[in-house]
Amino acid sequence: MKIELRSDREFDVIAIGRACIDLNAVEYNRPMEQTHTFSKYVGGSPANIVIGGAKLGLRTGFIGKISDDQHGRFIEQYMRSVGVDTSNMVVDREGHKTGLAFTEIKSPTECSILMYRDNAADLFLHPSEVLEDYIRRSKILLVSGTALAQSPSREAVLKAIRLAKQGDVKVVFELDYRPYTWTSTDETSVYYSLVAEQSDIVIGTRDEFDVMENSFGGRNETTIETLFKHAPELVVIKHGLDGSYAYTRSGEVFRGEAYQAKVLKTFGAGDSYAAAFLYALIRNLDIATALKYASASAAIVVSRHSSSDAMPKIEEIERLLELHVSH
Amino acid sequence: MKIELRSDREFDVIAIGRACIDLNAVEYNRPMEQTHTFSKYVGGSPANIVIGGAKLGLRTGFIGKISDDQHGRFIEQYMRSVGVDTSNMVVDREGHKTGLAFTEIKSPTECSILMYRDNAADLFLHPSEVLEDYIRRSKILLVSGTALAQSPSREAVLKAIRLAKQGDVKVVFELDYRPYTWTSTDETSVYYSLVAEQSDIVIGTRDEFDVMENSFGGRNETTIETLFKHAPELVVIKHGLDGSYAYTRSGEVFRGEAYQAKVLKTFGAGDSYAAAFLYALIRNLDIATALKYASASAAIVVSRHSSSDAMPKIEEIERLLELHVSH
Amino acid sequence: MKIELRSDREFDVIAIGRACIDLNAVEYNRPMEQTHTFSKYVGGSPANIVIGGAKLGLRTGFIGKISDDQHGRFIEQYMRSVGVDTSNMVVDREGHKTGLAFTEIKSPTECSILMYRDNAADLFLHPSEVLEDYIRRSKILLVSGTALAQSPSREAVLKAIRLAKQGDVKVVFELDYRPYTWTSTDETSVYYSLVAEQSDIVIGTRDEFDVMENSFGGRNETTIETLFKHAPELVVIKHGLDGSYAYTRSGEVFRGEAYQAKVLKTFGAGDSYAAAFLYALIRNLDIATALKYASASAAIVVSRHSSSDAMPKIEEIERLLELHVSH
Amino acid sequence: MKIELRSDREFDVIAIGRACIDLNAVEYNRPMEQTHTFSKYVGGSPANIVIGGAKLGLRTGFIGKISDDQHGRFIEQYMRSVGVDTSNMVVDREGHKTGLAFTEIKSPTECSILMYRDNAADLFLHPSEVLEDYIRRSKILLVSGTALAQSPSREAVLKAIRLAKQGDVKVVFELDYRPYTWTSTDETSVYYSLVAEQSDIVIGTRDEFDVMENSFGGRNETTIETLFKHAPELVVIKHGLDGSYAYTRSGEVFRGEAYQAKVLKTFGAGDSYAAAFLYALIRNLDIATALKYASASAAIVVSRHSSSDAMPKIEEIERLLELHVSH
Repeated sequence: MKIELRSDREFDVIAIGRACIDLNAVEYNRPMEQTHTFSKYVGGSPANIVIGGAKLGLRTGFIGKISDDQHGRFIEQYMRSVGVDTSNMVVDREGHKTGLAFTEIKSPTECSILMYRDNAADLFLHPSEVLEDYIRRSKILLVSGTALAQSPSREAVLKAIRLAKQGDVKVVFELDYRPYTWTSTDETSVYYSLVAEQSDIVIGTRDEFDVMENSFGGRNETTIETLFKHAPELVVIKHGLDGSYAYTRSGEVFRGEAYQAKVLKTFGAGDSYAAAFLYALIRNLDIATALKYASASAAIVVSRHSSSDAMPKIEEIERLLELHVSH
Repeated sequence: MKIELRSDREFDVIAIGRACIDLNAVEYNRPMEQTHTFSKYVGGSPANIVIGGAKLGLRTGFIGKISDDQHGRFIEQYMRSVGVDTSNMVVDREGHKTGLAFTEIKSPTECSILMYRDNAADLFLHPSEVLEDYIRRSKILLVSGTALAQSPSREAVLKAIRLAKQGDVKVVFELDYRPYTWTSTDETSVYYSLVAEQSDIVIGTRDEFDVMENSFGGRNETTIETLFKHAPELVVIKHGLDGSYAYTRSGEVFRGEAYQAKVLKTFGAGDSYAAAFLYALIRNLDIATALKYASASAAIVVSRHSSSDAMPKIEEIERLLELHVSH
Repeated sequence: MKIELRSDREFDVIAIGRACIDLNAVEYNRPMEQTHTFSKYVGGSPANIVIGGAKLGLRTGFIGKISDDQHGRFIEQYMRSVGVDTSNMVVDREGHKTGLAFTEIKSPTECSILMYRDNAADLFLHPSEVLEDYIRRSKILLVSGTALAQSPSREAVLKAIRLAKQGDVKVVFELDYRPYTWTSTDETSVYYSLVAEQSDIVIGTRDEFDVMENSFGGRNETTIETLFKHAPELVVIKHGLDGSYAYTRSGEVFRGEAYQAKVLKTFGAGDSYAAAFLYALIRNLDIATALKYASASAAIVVSRHSSSDAMPKIEEIERLLELHVSH
Repeated sequence: MKIELRSDREFDVIAIGRACIDLNAVEYNRPMEQTHTFSKYVGGSPANIVIGGAKLGLRTGFIGKISDDQHGRFIEQYMRSVGVDTSNMVVDREGHKTGLAFTEIKSPTECSILMYRDNAADLFLHPSEVLEDYIRRSKILLVSGTALAQSPSREAVLKAIRLAKQGDVKVVFELDYRPYTWTSTDETSVYYSLVAEQSDIVIGTRDEFDVMENSFGGRNETTIETLFKHAPELVVIKHGLDGSYAYTRSGEVFRGEAYQAKVLKTFGAGDSYAAAFLYALIRNLDIATALKYASASAAIVVSRHSSSDAMPKIEEIERLLELHVSH
């Protein structure tokens, strides 16, 4: 099965949701209390995905709200500098701040994030700021789950999905579940189900699909049985080091291997995975190949310091894949 | 066309949403400043509809949250006394108050409402308080638009709709648009569209459908063209004194006449309309007859002082219809 | 000891704080669930006091914020009609509603109130709406404790007290403690202490002074010892049916008897007490007499249906006192 | 005139208010958009003052609320490491975050701060968390104006002042006005006046005193005339490069010179000024000398990168003063 994308569109992917600031520990392998210096990067799952896509050569755009300050301007400037179209990024005029993520790297496997998300500007994107014409210029609308966590961003995203479906734009839903912005998993489950059932492609970890189903220890077969009764054509479920699975509505199942990497931290793995997976679909590669690109991209990013700036070029992905083939 | 309802269900209609207190001016035909006495009634669109249904002989139930005080207890006691099942009404434990509506009747055509809706208990119904088993015991789930205005009531309703669809329960959406509980018509439009497209029957005034479409002066033809691409089988659009129209997915159009009445006030017309319309559908009467019952019921309620207690019995509706036939 | 008041002022008393609506059970001696009709009156402690004062012949004014609706207009019209100067009552422009109090009279001794105080308009009085020139036109500024419960009303009152002290206006603090508008007794205690220590006269029940002291079972002697280290000259502590005590800075103690009355309900006793007490002080009567007037006024109001409209005329107070003398 | 301090107290100064994180631009003399690395320091005016005091050899303590995360723990550890008693710092259990200040240094004279103060943990200090016994162990209670900006921190500070006055602890009020945490200057003016009039020593810039007076271009003579009618014994008004003035209740006026410094940034000048000024008073030096120490301390801090870690030792202050004498 192949995902049919419109060929007459200017953009490959337009993402909607948050663009934030990551403050990454410069001195790491220690508790954050002992870190005295932080490096600033653009962060936030949908921003990282279009940045990653742009670095791979895709034509990408972004819909989101940024703060009216130095952090907001840095985000817009950085994204524009790597080739993301920022014409539909809106500057907040009500004093909301950019979301922050201080990353703590105690060891490659003990990473945590200290989030500043109270009244983050991205959550104030208003449905009136989502423009039909812009969405119709893209092959794909990428929706990030976190953007559903609060109003009015939630309604902005629901409107964007509606416009995408009316405009023959494929909707890709990256579950991107971040507990701190939701009031309950009941609430998350309501919106995740609603959006997943309207999307063409759904990507997430097994844990995230469990949140969508408001359950624990869910089985992939049950998940896809429910989703394939509705709009989805392709569902990708990630199982960490055990690899990932892509299921198609027509019944195919593909398994993607996780590649070994010298892990510096775990952040950014999902975003780089999604960027490379979409790249492959857009380049009309098959699903098995897309899974390989995705895993390779994730393996590269976890070995590096940031999540956005670290996004690989296509040559880097292909070089890593060649190494693995030659094994 | 007929709406196929499950015959194996204990309840005819279960409504979800608000149950409030109406405080109706005892001395009327004057500004409220000059009213010194108010009569207390149960109010709120979905509560009125199931009360009206119960008076007509339907088996009805209600899902909603009521305040932990004298007003909340009055609501539950009254609804139970007229035969509504209140087993799934939940008592709020966080100090929220019952919504109030003071009605002002300056003249039969100049009526207004002074609302107390800040933190009204009904808007705090939580998705975890909506039980799948209960919904599956009904033929119809009646959803009121106002219940979508705020979280967590919004999510409770979205969950109820999902459960209804999974459980082969018909979803009837009464738009019931009340501007004061919404932050913007953009927001209303997002949720009204989402819910209308998932419902089997949609009922509202032309103005309310305009809100759903986030436009002015919309045409019925456009409305039904959009809705019939999705779940709806039947759409009822009311045009006040010009009567109402019922459109079926199979292409039929029915026009219902508005009956003359000695109008005391305009409140409650829509709720009594919906109650009698659903009664007729459940009794397996045809759509043309359902429109007549609905209009007759509305004509009776506007001639009386309350919106809930004034709901007619079936004999009263039939008597009024006989008078009109004999003309 | 006598309280020295400026003789060159246009107003005897200007009160600051809330003016609300009481909805009193027409059918009483039963739970409110069984009451179907409510009578509307102006309510709220400081409003009642200046209404009571005006009925006794005092020249009174009011500083407060009222809703931009029928309830707000009713309040202003009623207060003006009984002679209260309403020129400094401000209409809220942000959609806040008038506070409501539904009264339940199960029996003369079992009375309770169902309050609607969420975002009540009176709590949104802003310091910029308190005018120095107006306060300086009065002999007395009457401050109600409830107005300290939330910002910005809290700051409006603190500013008014400051202006009063600068303008040689006596500050009378009526503790008027209503738990539902405060977040904690710690918070209440901070502001009650602050304001009491700056006031010239402090009036409250023993329980209210306990709240001020953030303690239980406090002794009057301790209370006055603390207060007389600061501004107060006169402290009145009410002990319900056991009567009330007035303490002066110069060491005098007066005991006022509570008069027997055919009690209909307990509401309004404190407000009518304060109105008549201030009347006596302003008419230059001695403190012992002021306590008698206060008790008589309270006895009259608890025998009647409302708290504001029921405020007695001076002849009624004097007639009741004559009856008691003749015993 | 000398300020009489209790000699029988364990602490010289206990401060109450905020302790935050400063994130200072590592690459400076450029807009923050072009800064990629930030150094982390403890910040917040009252925290800086007790840190500065501790470095000068004073025995200091701190009352404040810190976040339950890496930033909160860093603050407590750092303050403890320099000798501040942190036994009365309270850990927030409701998920509030540490306030942040990103500093931008475009040039030595163009400095600005990007603040994160929404729901900052320090503003949630509750009056019940302020302990009388602790305050009574100090000679001085230092109050920072920003702690008055929101409830419940506001009430915690008002309670602390009350306890200090009852316990013969001198109250020093550092105005520390930060507009972003206040809703209006009317509100600020109410609390600044209230607290200044209850304090023994008041320190601020001329602009800050204008905020207290809710006016522009105020004169020092008017300010002190008003304040000396109340509790203050000493008022220090800073005029930037034009130096500062200390006024005593007994009528003395002292002028302190501002010392030239190689300015890196302007942050931290006020805090280092206050720390050294209090040091001198506590060491029983005269007011003229205290002004010199204060100016010298400020001159040292503005030449360095941080506001807390940069606080000078007493030898550094004295060396700078010697240089100035020898000129």
